[in-house]
Amino acid sequence: MSDKIYRVNMATMGFSVEDVPAEWAGLGGRGLTSIIVAEEVDPECHPLGPNNKLVFAPGLLSGTSAANSGRNSCGAKSPLTGGIKESNVGGTSAGIMAKLGVKALIIEGLPKDDSTFYHLHVSKEKVEFFAVPELVGKNNYEVLDYMLEKYSKKVAVMSIGTPGEMRMNLANISVKDPGGKLRSHGRGGLGAVMGSKKIKCITVDAESYKETTIADPEKFKEASKIFTKALQENPISGQGLPAFGTNVLVNILNEAGGLPTRNFRSGSWEHAENICGETMAENIKARGGKTTHGCHAGCVIQCSQVYNGPEGEYITSGFEYETIWAYGANMGIEDLDLIARIDGLMDDLGVDAIETGVVFGLAVDAGILAYGDGKRAYELIANDIAKGTPLGRILGGGTHVLGKLYGLVRVPTVKGQSIPAYDPRAVKGQGVTYATSTMGADHTAGYAVATNILNSGGHVDPLKKEGQIELARNLQIATAAVDSTGMCIFVAFPALDDPACLPALVDMINARFGINLTGDDVTNLGIKILKAEHAFNLKAGLTSADDRLPEFMKYEVLPPHNVVWDFTGAELDSFWDF
Amino acid sequence: MSDKIYRVNMATMGFSVEDVPAEWAGLGGRGLTSIIVAEEVDPECHPLGPNNKLVFAPGLLSGTSAANSGRNSCGAKSPLTGGIKESNVGGTSAGIMAKLGVKALIIEGLPKDDSTFYHLHVSKEKVEFFAVPELVGKNNYEVLDYMLEKYSKKVAVMSIGTPGEMRMNLANISVKDPGGKLRSHGRGGLGAVMGSKKIKCITVDAESYKETTIADPEKFKEASKIFTKALQENPISGQGLPAFGTNVLVNILNEAGGLPTRNFRSGSWEHAENICGETMAENIKARGGKTTHGCHAGCVIQCSQVYNGPEGEYITSGFEYETIWAYGANMGIEDLDLIARIDGLMDDLGVDAIETGVVFGLAVDAGILAYGDGKRAYELIANDIAKGTPLGRILGGGTHVLGKLYGLVRVPTVKGQSIPAYDPRAVKGQGVTYATSTMGADHTAGYAVATNILNSGGHVDPLKKEGQIELARNLQIATAAVDSTGMCIFVAFPALDDPACLPALVDMINARFGINLTGDDVTNLGIKILKAEHAFNLKAGLTSADDRLPEFMKYEVLPPHNVVWDFTGAELDSFWDF
Repeated sequence: MSDKIYRVNMATMGFSVEDVPAEWAGLGGRGLTSIIVAEEVDPECHPLGPNNKLVFAPGLLSGTSAANSGRNSCGAKSPLTGGIKESNVGGTSAGIMAKLGVKALIIEGLPKDDSTFYHLHVSKEKVEFFAVPELVGKNNYEVLDYMLEKYSKKVAVMSIGTPGEMRMNLANISVKDPGGKLRSHGRGGLGAVMGSKKIKCITVDAESYKETTIADPEKFKEASKIFTKALQENPISGQGLPAFGTNVLVNILNEAGGLPTRNFRSGSWEHAENICGETMAENIKARGGKTTHGCHAGCVIQCSQVYNGPEGEYITSGFEYETIWAYGANMGIEDLDLIARIDGLMDDLGVDAIETGVVFGLAVDAGILAYGDGKRAYELIANDIAKGTPLGRILGGGTHVLGKLYGLVRVPTVKGQSIPAYDPRAVKGQGVTYATSTMGADHTAGYAVATNILNSGGHVDPLKKEGQIELARNLQIATAAVDSTGMCIFVAFPALDDPACLPALVDMINARFGINLTGDDVTNLGIKILKAEHAFNLKAGLTSADDRLPEFMKYEVLPPHNVVWDFTGAELDSFWDF
Repeated sequence: MSDKIYRVNMATMGFSVEDVPAEWAGLGGRGLTSIIVAEEVDPECHPLGPNNKLVFAPGLLSGTSAANSGRNSCGAKSPLTGGIKESNVGGTSAGIMAKLGVKALIIEGLPKDDSTFYHLHVSKEKVEFFAVPELVGKNNYEVLDYMLEKYSKKVAVMSIGTPGEMRMNLANISVKDPGGKLRSHGRGGLGAVMGSKKIKCITVDAESYKETTIADPEKFKEASKIFTKALQENPISGQGLPAFGTNVLVNILNEAGGLPTRNFRSGSWEHAENICGETMAENIKARGGKTTHGCHAGCVIQCSQVYNGPEGEYITSGFEYETIWAYGANMGIEDLDLIARIDGLMDDLGVDAIETGVVFGLAVDAGILAYGDGKRAYELIANDIAKGTPLGRILGGGTHVLGKLYGLVRVPTVKGQSIPAYDPRAVKGQGVTYATSTMGADHTAGYAVATNILNSGGHVDPLKKEGQIELARNLQIATAAVDSTGMCIFVAFPALDDPACLPALVDMINARFGINLTGDDVTNLGIKILKAEHAFNLKAGLTSADDRLPEFMKYEVLPPHNVVWDFTGAELDSFWDF
């Protein structure tokens, strides 16, 4: 069965299964979602109105046995940034969609009867629509249980919690992972777009698919072996990440003076020890959790984990550095277990860990709670955000809107999206990515931390301006391409340092489709994607003035290096000279 | 004494009194505030941060005996729109500043000690600074009493209430009028900018000034006579406005099908009779109020009024159509007395009547209150907005942000500012002004209602697109110039219909300064101002995508004419072809 475009119209509750247009054939993941959004969505439309579209697309290698190829992309016009958004996720949806032959799922329109929510079930050449009033007001784990009961343990499930129903800017789309836990299409409020279309849940049938066809199985196998070896032998993807998860970064960033602390007032935190990856790994080992865990089938990095409480009870999995930083250093919670409970709660509700965490850092400035009061943060999520009280609506709007409502100046956002866990004044290459990314502040869009701090792909001094624009540009181009393959972003580490890695990735794509891409083709794909996204944003009303970090970072000195953000507008604008 | 620029630095609590640069000499009012903001404020700065400036400038004819010349302009980068803002006001401040020789008052920086608020007293070549902890948390009438006690009944007073202290987007700067009541620098959150600078109140000494010098008193007197006659003989400025105030418009717009009703769902309201100007005038007459009242000395139109309650008790003055429409047709309150009490409350707090009223229309869609529940609206202003509860913060952020927080699509704003009392689908010329104005949706920026509905300056069919771009352009250019003279916008009616009016206005300016402007010079001044404002906005990050009405107006039909907003982007963009 050849791949098809599944197109759903919520206004008519109808669908069509279409041949893949020739110009979309070589695209997958982010490349496909961004090109579809750029071609089909009016950039001036309201993100929650009838003219936005929600697009899912597995990566080019998803559904194959290639290591770490299980990422699914979701795209739309973002209600948070007002620009284009792509967010990719692990879990089981990419593999199942790819094997079913769903090249992309495009969801259009708003239902005429918006008095309830709907469940969409995608199976072979078919989409079914069910009103699910019984699931309205429920959160993700309850929806997941319901669907696993209705279908099978293998069905792919994408759902929203109450924040998505309420169309909050920090709402995610949550995706079932192989262990029955949840991963997230995070950032940019994609859950709000799904909520605006009154879709509570999408399931994808895992029974009717067949294995993905490989044009040249021998070549694929060989390239796959080289690629897997590169991942396993790299010290970061092969050792650091498996041992401590992404939380390996707390100590590293703290030492580098780039760990944003107390809403970006310092680059180091005196209590980092309490929340660092080493402490986390000790807890896991002592309490019978798992230090390694894959977010999708075929992952050889296993940076995820299962984190249990003191009594050995399950608390959360996929416990990431960004979350631990946001509630730890940035909001002052010293109790890692409490942060873990917040993490699990956020999974259940489907709210973005970075946006929610950073909003709490700013909420301290707004007088809503005190530094370190994790109990109150937990309650605000469980009672206010989940139920949409006025305070919950405020927090649910994200950091930028909170700043607007409380007249605050020290608001760490770019294009309305919260800045993640690396202070751009002390990790300047990352700052260039935050400023220029088409996605708003986003560490994954071009992870310059790799070369600024981790010495992957050489070294560019994090405190100096020299070389940062070029570094961020090259990484963003490469990332846009990698995000199209279905590969996890952490393949970047071997790709930057092992000359065999990228060619093997290209060989796998060639073997899968029987084509002959070169490394340059892949670079050009990344360029094409970035330019399409940028053009969409310009038409949507974003300008170079949006490619800026918050003004306070230009005049407020960050200890311990006592640095400011010193790129000029013209320097940042030169990012787009390619 | 020649005019001077008074420049205040809140960071140093210092000031300078500077000669007027030659290139600013011919400017006043909006022309001066906008040129100063465009020249001195970084368009990318945070509106509430240290690099925004708050500028006051009386009009070119303020301080003279010219009829209706008592408008004072205030400018800054707006925290509501993110673009430039000018807002002019009646009251006594323009005349007093002009007579004191204050060409402009420029306030820069943020105080180092921001633990309290300050009072600035401007007198002859001097600015004094007083910490006023005793006024923190007080509203405008209490501040006014305090200052009238400290100085004299004649002192000019500009102040903010608690919403300004809290830097809410709907905060105004309030100004004492000749009757001891309040007028407002409304729209765009200028009160929040004043609050960010920790200024509770500015007073301007009314004792040390001398009369404004007139270069050619005879010529001035003669031109003034012609100008006054034109104002008095025009049927709108001479009869309609004095008889019914601006509220004469309720019945007119209702009949025209352009009275936005229930958050812009219809163009006519079945209860318009209860709130119209005729009903208002009857109440005033029966209860011993005043149907005519000038907002500033020298006003010959007298469209303001004093509105008393059933027992003859004072409720409010300056009770405008926009307010009555917003709480009436748009939010469903049928009780004019209750709307009047809300109006008086809004004066005391210093919140924008349009932004606050429109936010309540949308708040119904958000489920915060019900149509017609004026009692609840009153309480939400008095208890929540005034005290900054979470719900008060939400409402205080304005309509655009409320829409963001509740995921609403039918949000009537342009550039984040609420659309006023004329539905653009049924008054298309006004819609062009809303879309293209540098100020965000603003009826005063180019009042096409005049020619679309009131047949002033000819007639352009309100329901057709033909001629509207040109109409809105010509009106916006003329308005930018008029806003520089210190003249009230209602001089537009005789100016459009009486060929003697505009030349007399130009003659007064020439006689005042001993110069020889022509009508073309005045048009060119308007063009210069608009272009400077537009250039600032583009640098601040606004684009043609911001020159658009809300998308829902393109697909949602407005009864009774069953019209949509049908201008293309390219048509709107052609507005700037001059």
